[in-house]
Amino acid sequence: MSGLCKILLTISYDGTAYHGWQNQNNAVSVQEKVEEALSGVFAVKSLVKITGASRTDTGVHALDQKASFFIEKNLVKIPLINLPLVLNSKLPPDIKVTDARFVGESFHPRYNAKEKTYRYQILNSKYPNPMLNNYAWHVHYKLNMSEMKKAARLMVGTFNFSAFCASGSSAKTFVRSVYEVKINEEPESSLLTVFVRGNGFLYNMVRIMAGTLMYTGCGKIDAEKIPEIIKSGDRTLAGITAPPQGLTLYKVSYTAPNQSVIY
Amino acid sequence: MSGLCKILLTISYDGTAYHGWQNQNNAVSVQEKVEEALSGVFAVKSLVKITGASRTDTGVHALDQKASFFIEKNLVKIPLINLPLVLNSKLPPDIKVTDARFVGESFHPRYNAKEKTYRYQILNSKYPNPMLNNYAWHVHYKLNMSEMKKAARLMVGTFNFSAFCASGSSAKTFVRSVYEVKINEEPESSLLTVFVRGNGFLYNMVRIMAGTLMYTGCGKIDAEKIPEIIKSGDRTLAGITAPPQGLTLYKVSYTAPNQSVIY
Repeated sequence: MSGLCKILLTISYDGTAYHGWQNQNNAVSVQEKVEEALSGVFAVKSLVKITGASRTDTGVHALDQKASFFIEKNLVKIPLINLPLVLNSKLPPDIKVTDARFVGESFHPRYNAKEKTYRYQILNSKYPNPMLNNYAWHVHYKLNMSEMKKAARLMVGTFNFSAFCASGSSAKTFVRSVYEVKINEEPESSLLTVFVRGNGFLYNMVRIMAGTLMYTGCGKIDAEKIPEIIKSGDRTLAGITAPPQGLTLYKVSYTAPNQSVIY
Repeated sequence: MSGLCKILLTISYDGTAYHGWQNQNNAVSVQEKVEEALSGVFAVKSLVKITGASRTDTGVHALDQKASFFIEKNLVKIPLINLPLVLNSKLPPDIKVTDARFVGESFHPRYNAKEKTYRYQILNSKYPNPMLNNYAWHVHYKLNMSEMKKAARLMVGTFNFSAFCASGSSAKTFVRSVYEVKINEEPESSLLTVFVRGNGFLYNMVRIMAGTLMYTGCGKIDAEKIPEIIKSGDRTLAGITAPPQGLTLYKVSYTAPNQSVIY
């Protein structure tokens, strides 16, 4: 007897060569590459459609993207533990599947996510590091870490984040909970790594947070003005949108603390 | 009145796209790109020839390559502190100059180096991380860190390292002093970073050391056999040559501890 089952994949990718996660006309997406590999592995004629947890933009990376798809049970001929290796043999080197598991039919990788963590890397040095061209934002201004850390603390909470949302968003509500904004410093490599953890993020929200942290670090925005900027809902008062290559979807969790999911 | 002066550059590069540091026929080298940029900046018709501290191989990176060149004093029309920015505007994004200073006419970036540090990155995880494809060696075997650290300690000292030298070397002596072999673990990213510091290195020596450390980690070589392998001078007893992309020329020092220079 047949029937459908649902499988959840964990996917890592270097987003440099792709026009983001989501399928689009006339541009190669990560989603498309994964769908092609799945269709090949399961030998189905029509493309296996997948749904991702996060629509990462052009040049943005992922270490823990999640994506689910329906497939006929009788087409799953290998133990799921072997599916990543088989899929990886059909995927390009810059996209790799690291986990595959069955989930319930009603499971949705985005709606069921309890929290997401994004990582944003800033190289704060006089000259660029060519090995980080695709993985960090090079900022040559001297950044004031204590101001940035103060601003980071003030971004934590449940707020209407419309001041940190790019225009054109179709979000129904702009309220999001940010649980943590942590900045790690690595003096040896001049790398500042920002981890932003929350229940969900608006369009470009993490990149605008990174750009605003940078502005507080170089004195263009006072750290203590952050609550006022959030309250204003005015995008023009926040900092610039930091460039995509510094951003990585770092972790998507489905079993997080007692937090209500907003979207 | 005219005359020649000598300038020492510090250069970072992502070696992925280059056939190594050194000029060669029918292949693009890092040296060639820097020489072209210098010739452009100083507006000289014949190529400005540079001498590097280390002949890094295809795919090997550098964060602190050093290279010197002679130039007519009267062609140096800007303060040297501005030379990196001017050169960088003519260099591709994957090669950047980070320092320029005058040195004595007899200064030689290789012969005068007191010590060099190379970094070798191993990603020890079941699946690859696409963001590290060009910057680490993916090893999916579970590695025994205490064996690797034991082997690392036994590689420190002044020895004839011919067992750790690729064939075809034109070295006059195979004796080198290794001052330190340090392995850092980052559990979060599954990255093992090996730092090898010494007074000089034979052809492929650091990559053979990294391959031998890996072999001790997965049980193909007993860590305590390292002294015997060194003593044998037999290349076939050491481990494989680790792939180039994990290797970075990390630091070249001209003012190091009281160590005699061998080459």
